[in-house]
Amino acid sequence: MDAPASLDAFRAVLRGPLPAPDGAAVQGARARDAVLTKPPGALGRLEEVAAFLAGWQGKAVPRLERVEIAVFAGNHGIAARGVSAFPPEVTVQMVANFNAGGAAINQLARAFGAAMSVCPLSLDRPTADFTEGPAMDEADLLAALQAGWRAVPADADLFIAGEMGIGNTTPAAALAAALFGGTGWAGRGTGVDDAGLARKEAAVAAGLARHAGHLDDPCEVLRRLGGREIAAMTGAYLAARMQRVPVVLDGFISCAAAAVLHRAAPGALDHCLAGHQSAEGAHGRLLAALGKEPLLSLGLRLGEGSGAALALGVIRGAVACHGGMATFAEAGVSGG
Amino acid sequence: MDAPASLDAFRAVLRGPLPAPDGAAVQGARARDAVLTKPPGALGRLEEVAAFLAGWQGKAVPRLERVEIAVFAGNHGIAARGVSAFPPEVTVQMVANFNAGGAAINQLARAFGAAMSVCPLSLDRPTADFTEGPAMDEADLLAALQAGWRAVPADADLFIAGEMGIGNTTPAAALAAALFGGTGWAGRGTGVDDAGLARKEAAVAAGLARHAGHLDDPCEVLRRLGGREIAAMTGAYLAARMQRVPVVLDGFISCAAAAVLHRAAPGALDHCLAGHQSAEGAHGRLLAALGKEPLLSLGLRLGEGSGAALALGVIRGAVACHGGMATFAEAGVSGG
Repeated sequence: MDAPASLDAFRAVLRGPLPAPDGAAVQGARARDAVLTKPPGALGRLEEVAAFLAGWQGKAVPRLERVEIAVFAGNHGIAARGVSAFPPEVTVQMVANFNAGGAAINQLARAFGAAMSVCPLSLDRPTADFTEGPAMDEADLLAALQAGWRAVPADADLFIAGEMGIGNTTPAAALAAALFGGTGWAGRGTGVDDAGLARKEAAVAAGLARHAGHLDDPCEVLRRLGGREIAAMTGAYLAARMQRVPVVLDGFISCAAAAVLHRAAPGALDHCLAGHQSAEGAHGRLLAALGKEPLLSLGLRLGEGSGAALALGVIRGAVACHGGMATFAEAGVSGG
Repeated sequence: MDAPASLDAFRAVLRGPLPAPDGAAVQGARARDAVLTKPPGALGRLEEVAAFLAGWQGKAVPRLERVEIAVFAGNHGIAARGVSAFPPEVTVQMVANFNAGGAAINQLARAFGAAMSVCPLSLDRPTADFTEGPAMDEADLLAALQAGWRAVPADADLFIAGEMGIGNTTPAAALAAALFGGTGWAGRGTGVDDAGLARKEAAVAAGLARHAGHLDDPCEVLRRLGGREIAAMTGAYLAARMQRVPVVLDGFISCAAAAVLHRAAPGALDHCLAGHQSAEGAHGRLLAALGKEPLLSLGLRLGEGSGAALALGVIRGAVACHGGMATFAEAGVSGG
């Protein structure tokens, strides 16, 4: 399916109807699970994961032959307000590190058998400071959504989006605040001190005040408060849904990007598993707002797709058990 | 190091001194972690895991080339009291399934690159019903401890013990009750109903009453209330400690076996990570008694070493990041 050619076309796709999982494949997976050589339910959440993948892949025995990780990178005008512990030039430096294979996500992709692509988005042209005006114009937003959309292979068995963008927990917090209301969405990101955290909270509050009255439409929220790599993730998650490719969400920024779809169309994230709960303060709250229970909670706060890639290990375990175990009849075990 | 030739020799080993981790290797691992291309602490518990492995392996850059899983199997006289949802013949049938490669642990071992051995312990000769007398005589206990001891390769980079034994959550609960006191240690195991759970609780209470006055020495507790596969795990965990092989603990039964060492010598489990918290009701309480924080909590309740093997996926991720990531200087990234 081609990427939507306009923002209106994107909104129209999101209005649905959106593809549903294959019920027969889910039933087939559950029937197989019931006769595998283990007590019923003994593999806990691994059993859910296998049935989930079966539904979205449309295969009673799901597989993970092609797992794709796309890492999007963007720069942010808001970074000038001292909201990060690192300088903005680190974004482009880390893109070089991704391409050279030196980042955490490279190691995790290799360890768990995923292909990885890197997608820098106009790094020399940061988004505007959202406390002064919209972060992106409509053309920028559309280009970012399309870049994300095109990063999802139609034949992928599983898709993960990661991100890199110095300062990007601040726009993610602004998105969460605009989409779900309330305060306290800003967190310590890569490790700001108390003064930095106060600057983040002030920036989020200023952004919401600046754009008040224009925050009803989630896509418009994304344009005004988001960033290119965040919008690319939003686009990728919808592309995955349209192609029935299951997704593993990563951390706070990934979930903020996904939340745009959730607020526009409840159920739009039914094809997504939450890979982990990160150490970013409000991530648990954001996951709860999305109705997602994370697979892992290991105190990561790196982004890049790293928490989702680590969850891929668990998901590989689920698929290996479901596909490879003997049935009671095959093994001659009593009690099936 | 040869297996202890007597129970007294085993007790003497346990009295220590026990080997400590290599402090220089831990320091080396931490120093490397501090210059990898990520914010400090951003890999959360993965950073702890890498430093832990470094210490026990004595290598500043830990590796996972040889990971060994040993699955011990035993049969239990207590099973005749209706404490399991499955009949006792399933133990020997599952051993055949392990040998044929059809069980969950086989799939997980393959998925995460571990070798696996299967060690059935006198399956045709169940332990005695511990409500009537000691589960094992001294020769049986010693043989089981030694079997476990010999299953740990001195050159393993990581060791996991798993178990299979219809009825064995009941002796595990009895061990926990005898070692830590209190009631409510029995749980639903492979899925007993309320009546089965009541029979388990009654069996544990009867066992503690029957052996009252003989439960001060943890090794004697193991002999009176344990089982062969449980004692084998106890022996394996001490063998691993003596050889500085790091261990991943599995579920309730694994932790009950480990608790024997912990109660005899506080700190005896310093070389052990908790792989997961299972769905068995009292596992969280047992982990807390051991002072261990589990890596995963996915509702598994299968045994076999399955939760520890799944955690191996996460541990592989930790080692891959620690060993494979570029440093700030190597990657030319600011902020190191």
